[in-house]
Amino acid sequence: MAKLFYRYAAMNSGKSTMLLQIAHNYEAMGKQVRLFTAAIDDRYGRGKITSRLDIQRDADTFDAEHDFLAGDYGDLACILLDEAQFLTPQQVRQLHRLAHSRKLPVICFGLRSDFRGEPFPGAAWLLALAEDIEEIKTICTCGRKATMHIRTDAAGRRLHHGPQVEIGDESRYHAVCAECFYAGESA
Amino acid sequence: MAKLFYRYAAMNSGKSTMLLQIAHNYEAMGKQVRLFTAAIDDRYGRGKITSRLDIQRDADTFDAEHDFLAGDYGDLACILLDEAQFLTPQQVRQLHRLAHSRKLPVICFGLRSDFRGEPFPGAAWLLALAEDIEEIKTICTCGRKATMHIRTDAAGRRLHHGPQVEIGDESRYHAVCAECFYAGESA
Amino acid sequence: MAKLFYRYAAMNSGKSTMLLQIAHNYEAMGKQVRLFTAAIDDRYGRGKITSRLDIQRDADTFDAEHDFLAGDYGDLACILLDEAQFLTPQQVRQLHRLAHSRKLPVICFGLRSDFRGEPFPGAAWLLALAEDIEEIKTICTCGRKATMHIRTDAAGRRLHHGPQVEIGDESRYHAVCAECFYAGESA
Amino acid sequence: MAKLFYRYAAMNSGKSTMLLQIAHNYEAMGKQVRLFTAAIDDRYGRGKITSRLDIQRDADTFDAEHDFLAGDYGDLACILLDEAQFLTPQQVRQLHRLAHSRKLPVICFGLRSDFRGEPFPGAAWLLALAEDIEEIKTICTCGRKATMHIRTDAAGRRLHHGPQVEIGDESRYHAVCAECFYAGESA
Repeated sequence: MAKLFYRYAAMNSGKSTMLLQIAHNYEAMGKQVRLFTAAIDDRYGRGKITSRLDIQRDADTFDAEHDFLAGDYGDLACILLDEAQFLTPQQVRQLHRLAHSRKLPVICFGLRSDFRGEPFPGAAWLLALAEDIEEIKTICTCGRKATMHIRTDAAGRRLHHGPQVEIGDESRYHAVCAECFYAGESA
Repeated sequence: MAKLFYRYAAMNSGKSTMLLQIAHNYEAMGKQVRLFTAAIDDRYGRGKITSRLDIQRDADTFDAEHDFLAGDYGDLACILLDEAQFLTPQQVRQLHRLAHSRKLPVICFGLRSDFRGEPFPGAAWLLALAEDIEEIKTICTCGRKATMHIRTDAAGRRLHHGPQVEIGDESRYHAVCAECFYAGESA
Repeated sequence: MAKLFYRYAAMNSGKSTMLLQIAHNYEAMGKQVRLFTAAIDDRYGRGKITSRLDIQRDADTFDAEHDFLAGDYGDLACILLDEAQFLTPQQVRQLHRLAHSRKLPVICFGLRSDFRGEPFPGAAWLLALAEDIEEIKTICTCGRKATMHIRTDAAGRRLHHGPQVEIGDESRYHAVCAECFYAGESA
Repeated sequence: MAKLFYRYAAMNSGKSTMLLQIAHNYEAMGKQVRLFTAAIDDRYGRGKITSRLDIQRDADTFDAEHDFLAGDYGDLACILLDEAQFLTPQQVRQLHRLAHSRKLPVICFGLRSDFRGEPFPGAAWLLALAEDIEEIKTICTCGRKATMHIRTDAAGRRLHHGPQVEIGDESRYHAVCAECFYAGESA
């Protein structure tokens, strides 16, 4: 059975490296894959999947209007999709249908929650529909597992409010554990 | 580190049995736990957690107004919460804070998506915030893993529309795999 | 694809409860299962699978001579096997073949290591061959996850040596975390 | 709590890439790691960890005589060890002690079973003692998950017998699913 997979992680965990490794594994067996990344993410150039280990590949891009069911996937062995938290719920549903109606495995990589601790809608739908969910683990500076994000302003002060998506200065985002995320708050 | 746990499953998988087993394990070590279930779920009586293996225990109930941060949990070893898909996003946030600010483990059991294939909001937040996510597996009548639900009317015809929550005749809900869920649809 | 599954845990975690729940799930769908447990384990009577939640069912027994490939499994939906750490390596291989050559799912439940911290041979083979491995978690009295076992004598003193298998007074075995297992040793 | 981790996989899955990514993640946070690989594995030069994505780093080597408890690990954040199936049982025990008595996380990467379908002793012990076990998945040419290995001779004929370890011509080893492993055998 083809499945919808979600590999989620906090930022800077190496998601793109894993995606590129899986692409390599398929291709080493003579199988074809297709790569997607979010059009909005142009940190390394539009339509690039870039690993922190300095590997880069071109990818197709999706924006909120992209219809995944409109594609013709020929005899593709699988779809690999990065920055999946930017998918709309409708697009997650399209990918779920691709996996099950056209038997095409779809492996998505992305975040779970934003710097306010709120789910990305695309991530929430992937987590609710994917048949296979795995965490790519990384650590907080305190040594515990990082699962959340915080955002700081130019002066290094933590921000608690603002729009969910703001591509750009990556150094203002930090992957932290939940204890560090809530530190200083009373409960 | 105390964690927020989410054990998700399709209906009829044995979630409540597992919850009651974990309660038993804690208590056999002389530790105290507190059980919660959704007030709305009165299939077996209000405030009852009932296993398909014919074991039943009383539990506190939560409705959408319940404030989990208002409780005094003394030296509780953990909170065990059933029917967690009925939590509001705010309540998931409260439980996440309990785990990390008061170091109280919270183990939630619930569904992921409804009969339309849409996430329960409480489940979406749990899946986005929990540090430890595990699936309790069960099978579809076709033999594959069940991850979705379908609902039928009194005559056994499948329903695609209607309110997300409708407690009652359980025999109208069926846990199915994604292939059976989409069967008959074109994609 | 039928698979060989291994659900491992420390003692007193509720393995048998889970096994009985899965049997129930299959049977509620009109499917047939077959239960096995180790002949050597007669704590609750020979050929009984007994849950700590006071549920019990009869099961076939296996000893070291049992040949799983000799059985005729008709249209069984799956085999559920408890106390799987007592399987011989050859028997694990037989069950692996059953899963893949006869497409019969085999779900085994058992321990990993003995009171000396050494693997049970059957467990080592199951962990090396099973396509699907999951831990059933329980806690140590210190609150951490229990993964090891210690054994005490009648006076409550810890034993470090002795035969791997000694069925009997369960109260002399304790599931502990690795930190408690090594406590007092220098490293 | 520091843990012993085992990330297991079939050959050619990208284990070394993941190891190098984790090393990078730690170092990007200013933390120190130490890398080990098996002395016996000199496919890319002795003391090299080489990713299929063309990344390579130097590593310390271990042979069967190496005593991991003899090391002074200063304020290392973690040990990353590749080709862990070549550890002796005693060495696995040393690493388990390091994790729990010296609170030093140890993350091992390796195989589970050899081309005969028998566990590597080091892998069996890692699977029995590690607190955190995860599979790095890859696929068989048939599209199913690869979990086993086969070995062929120079003429491409499958070998069923021979020594467990024979470093060298990698092209003679193939990662396959269990169905392909047993294909042609009767059961």
